[in-house]
Amino acid sequence: MEGDRVYVALLHYPMYNKRMEIVATSITNLDLHDIARACRTFQVKRFFVVHPAKGQQQLIRDILGYWQEGFGGQYNPDRREAMSTISLCHDLQEVLMQIGQETAQEIKTVATDARTHPNTVSYRDLRAEISRHDRTWLLLFGTGWGISGELMAECDYILEPIGVNSDYNHLSVRSAVAIILDRLLGEPWYED
Amino acid sequence: MEGDRVYVALLHYPMYNKRMEIVATSITNLDLHDIARACRTFQVKRFFVVHPAKGQQQLIRDILGYWQEGFGGQYNPDRREAMSTISLCHDLQEVLMQIGQETAQEIKTVATDARTHPNTVSYRDLRAEISRHDRTWLLLFGTGWGISGELMAECDYILEPIGVNSDYNHLSVRSAVAIILDRLLGEPWYED
Repeated sequence: MEGDRVYVALLHYPMYNKRMEIVATSITNLDLHDIARACRTFQVKRFFVVHPAKGQQQLIRDILGYWQEGFGGQYNPDRREAMSTISLCHDLQEVLMQIGQETAQEIKTVATDARTHPNTVSYRDLRAEISRHDRTWLLLFGTGWGISGELMAECDYILEPIGVNSDYNHLSVRSAVAIILDRLLGEPWYED
Repeated sequence: MEGDRVYVALLHYPMYNKRMEIVATSITNLDLHDIARACRTFQVKRFFVVHPAKGQQQLIRDILGYWQEGFGGQYNPDRREAMSTISLCHDLQEVLMQIGQETAQEIKTVATDARTHPNTVSYRDLRAEISRHDRTWLLLFGTGWGISGELMAECDYILEPIGVNSDYNHLSVRSAVAIILDRLLGEPWYED
């Protein structure tokens, strides 16, 4: 598996809300659990949960404390192992700084979105690029109604949407992360 | 997409608990949402939520009422559309009976499990079989610590685990459903 050069970040700001206004979204407990478990399964190096608000950061710390060091982790060591992949950051710059302390490689940011953009990269091409091991990758996932257009424009790549042939494209971020990690890092089940 | 001959069922009994005892597990609200959204994205025909206990059945009815007919569905029509794929059943026999009323085709049951079994079917082979359109498929997903061995043994197929090359295999059922539907029914992103 190729996850040792791949990081995941779950962003809560700047996101769109239902009316396409820029907002900070709330933490969802099950996002942390499900995405941490998927990251650990596909051997992603670290899962950054990113929120700018101090109150929400404290909530994240409480959850992580319970699972990384408290009773939750004693009761369910598999869950502790998954939750231990999580780090808290206040913004994307801090994420990039932390990754930069762990690697000297160039870091490429990849935005994900349910909407179609003109310059998307395919799963096939990105999977091939990741397997070359010459760069470090940060996959960005949004919450609410998606990552703001301004932030999307700053990313190096935008990954094509899941379900491009479907008439319905409203997966949860938990499901989207699972599918995208499987396509980029999972075993090649489709080969002979 | 091939989902028009594919059904999904989420089982809450007979499941293993942590000590490998047979139990009925509790309903998790986000299982209903995430799996319904994934089923709708991959055009699965219907998503059966299966529970034997009357109190838990009422909880499911309350959730479905809010989203299929109540305020939730007015506020978020996309969510109503996904939640409308859900039907409530009290056991697997009722699921099979309901599917039998919708098709004259042979119905094949496919169990899913994070554990390895001797006679598993690969994703590649099952995807090819589904695309032949000559049978109807029911994919069974468990909760808790997985579907009881007795019920597994009655299924026509057992699908191989996700992450067979990983040293960690504890995805949430929400993530497992997303990945499995993508592998069996998603667009062939891996082809030229």
